[in-house]
Amino acid sequence: MRIAILGCGIVGSAVARRLTSPAARATGSPCEVDLTHIFDRRAGEKSRIFPKASIAKAMVWTERIEDVLRSDVDVIVETTGTIEPAANWIRASLLAGKSVVTANKQVIARYGPALLELAAKSGKQLRFEAAIGGAMPIVRAIVDGMAGDELVKVIAILNGTTNLVLSRMEAAGCSIEDALDEARRQGCAESDPSDDLDGRDAAAKLAILCSLAFRTQISPDEIVTRSAGRIGRSDVARAAGQSGVIRQLAHARFDSRSSTLTAWVSPVVVPRASIFGQTVGPQNVAVVTGTFSGDMGVFGTGAGGAATSSAVLSDLLAIARDRAAVSRPVSLTKPEKIVGFSSVEAGPAIDWNQVASPVEVL
Amino acid sequence: MRIAILGCGIVGSAVARRLTSPAARATGSPCEVDLTHIFDRRAGEKSRIFPKASIAKAMVWTERIEDVLRSDVDVIVETTGTIEPAANWIRASLLAGKSVVTANKQVIARYGPALLELAAKSGKQLRFEAAIGGAMPIVRAIVDGMAGDELVKVIAILNGTTNLVLSRMEAAGCSIEDALDEARRQGCAESDPSDDLDGRDAAAKLAILCSLAFRTQISPDEIVTRSAGRIGRSDVARAAGQSGVIRQLAHARFDSRSSTLTAWVSPVVVPRASIFGQTVGPQNVAVVTGTFSGDMGVFGTGAGGAATSSAVLSDLLAIARDRAAVSRPVSLTKPEKIVGFSSVEAGPAIDWNQVASPVEVL
Repeated sequence: MRIAILGCGIVGSAVARRLTSPAARATGSPCEVDLTHIFDRRAGEKSRIFPKASIAKAMVWTERIEDVLRSDVDVIVETTGTIEPAANWIRASLLAGKSVVTANKQVIARYGPALLELAAKSGKQLRFEAAIGGAMPIVRAIVDGMAGDELVKVIAILNGTTNLVLSRMEAAGCSIEDALDEARRQGCAESDPSDDLDGRDAAAKLAILCSLAFRTQISPDEIVTRSAGRIGRSDVARAAGQSGVIRQLAHARFDSRSSTLTAWVSPVVVPRASIFGQTVGPQNVAVVTGTFSGDMGVFGTGAGGAATSSAVLSDLLAIARDRAAVSRPVSLTKPEKIVGFSSVEAGPAIDWNQVASPVEVL
Repeated sequence: MRIAILGCGIVGSAVARRLTSPAARATGSPCEVDLTHIFDRRAGEKSRIFPKASIAKAMVWTERIEDVLRSDVDVIVETTGTIEPAANWIRASLLAGKSVVTANKQVIARYGPALLELAAKSGKQLRFEAAIGGAMPIVRAIVDGMAGDELVKVIAILNGTTNLVLSRMEAAGCSIEDALDEARRQGCAESDPSDDLDGRDAAAKLAILCSLAFRTQISPDEIVTRSAGRIGRSDVARAAGQSGVIRQLAHARFDSRSSTLTAWVSPVVVPRASIFGQTVGPQNVAVVTGTFSGDMGVFGTGAGGAATSSAVLSDLLAIARDRAAVSRPVSLTKPEKIVGFSSVEAGPAIDWNQVASPVEVL
């Protein structure tokens, strides 16, 4: 199976290294998988970061997307992280008869259903385990593992950067600025972390989970968010005084009878001993509730090149194992009503009057 | 897709009910799935537990396995729980050109590799998510979700009955006998619970996880176990005095360079705040460590008809979605060395000198 990678950043280069390292090939890649093309706008410069011996002789580095689309690769791995032109590239790849593996949550949150339909029409696969929760296999857990149940609720920590910052604040007693500086030093925060802290990143992931778990179609923009960016040392200390910690939770609940989706992303005080309170650093966790099987959870490293590239490789191997797999698109419905915070579930970011009321967490 | 069920016990009847209930069909079964045959040694008696209206008119109840093997069903769901004749029935089903879904850990632990090879030769599927951890999708998490990583360690709570008994003892301060009586009243313990408490049930599941995670082939009988059956009130109290609780852990670690598998099942004192300590009642949890992605975990309801039937239905839907899926068998190697407890990892059942040393848990 021949592979191309679009975008040689943190995730793309980690995938490239693992596909071309002899050790990783021996252990992690039981199927024949060959990386033959890397597309990057700065391909010339990027190609120099790889030791020559590690890359197959026939490897093509290119700055032109057409070189990839017209090539004989079977699967295109998209790791650019942009919305456009990435969405167009994925579309063009599927139309060119390639399967696609992507880590792009914004594209899947916005165009996932249409792209999955296109993939099915082309008889190709579109896989995106890496778009949510890094190495935490939440997409498979919902789509395959809980396919036999009726799912009613998802509560999750989906942003590794914010979780790292919040747990750093409580461990070091530092300000959010100091915690962010530390996260940047670890390579776990962008220079502008507002998408992470404001909840937009988690909202995109939650929108995808809503489509998988409840078969509802919503835009990330329809999910109410409350920023974690203004949390201060005193908030963290006050939560600690109540045996609590502050976590950015993504919450979705679907009532199919009234077709009402409740969805929000917000910092919330949770008991320190809860699964959410115990989730520290760049870890992610998701708890999914089914009518028949009750609570099912997954946790794992939610960010970073190593974890995300593992998810990409798992998707590649799934395609390699079964290249003719049918990816039958599921029909999604638009919920009749989308609501955000309700006073019972969670108040404002840190509404201290609300802390005592039963926040629906484990 | 036409289905037969072998064995109409707790799991089999729960699957039958959900496949035939109009509500469950509407929500949980997007694909056309028809239950047409139920085989049970007491078919006549069992058939009376279903209201007539809920079962398709064409449904065949039979006490002869041949009626199922010679029928036109596409998938056979095996939920008898025995080793023989269940292993023979699964073999015969695959040879008759049927795919098989089973909840039978003892058969998969002993004959899984040979049966998977037979399934591949017949171009059919053999799925067994329900054999481990009830509704906790650990098989998919390892086989699909972490396929791109090199796995080195699995630590898990795999027996819901023992976990229910141990967490009942600590909650109620009662004896193991009283906790067992309570578990029996909840339908969560057999009249003879020795397979659960002694660790043989968890060892069978751990043997399967070793084959999936490390591609090592071992028999459940090669896994050292220590019984949880002699734990008393004083042990539970002593653990509590150290902020600990007692859990039956299944532990496996594989060093591929020396081809050494360390595997055991034993009651161990774990910190109350750890993910294992927080796992109470019939919950199961598994933490899998990958070289690249670190710790990944799954938890969920590990026992009971509702949870296990959800796992069976998920497997059925996976087959319905992609009936031609290739289930390429993975070649397994026999580890050169299999070791059990080592003094560093865990002492005897409750070796109080060991509690202070770093038990490898979260």
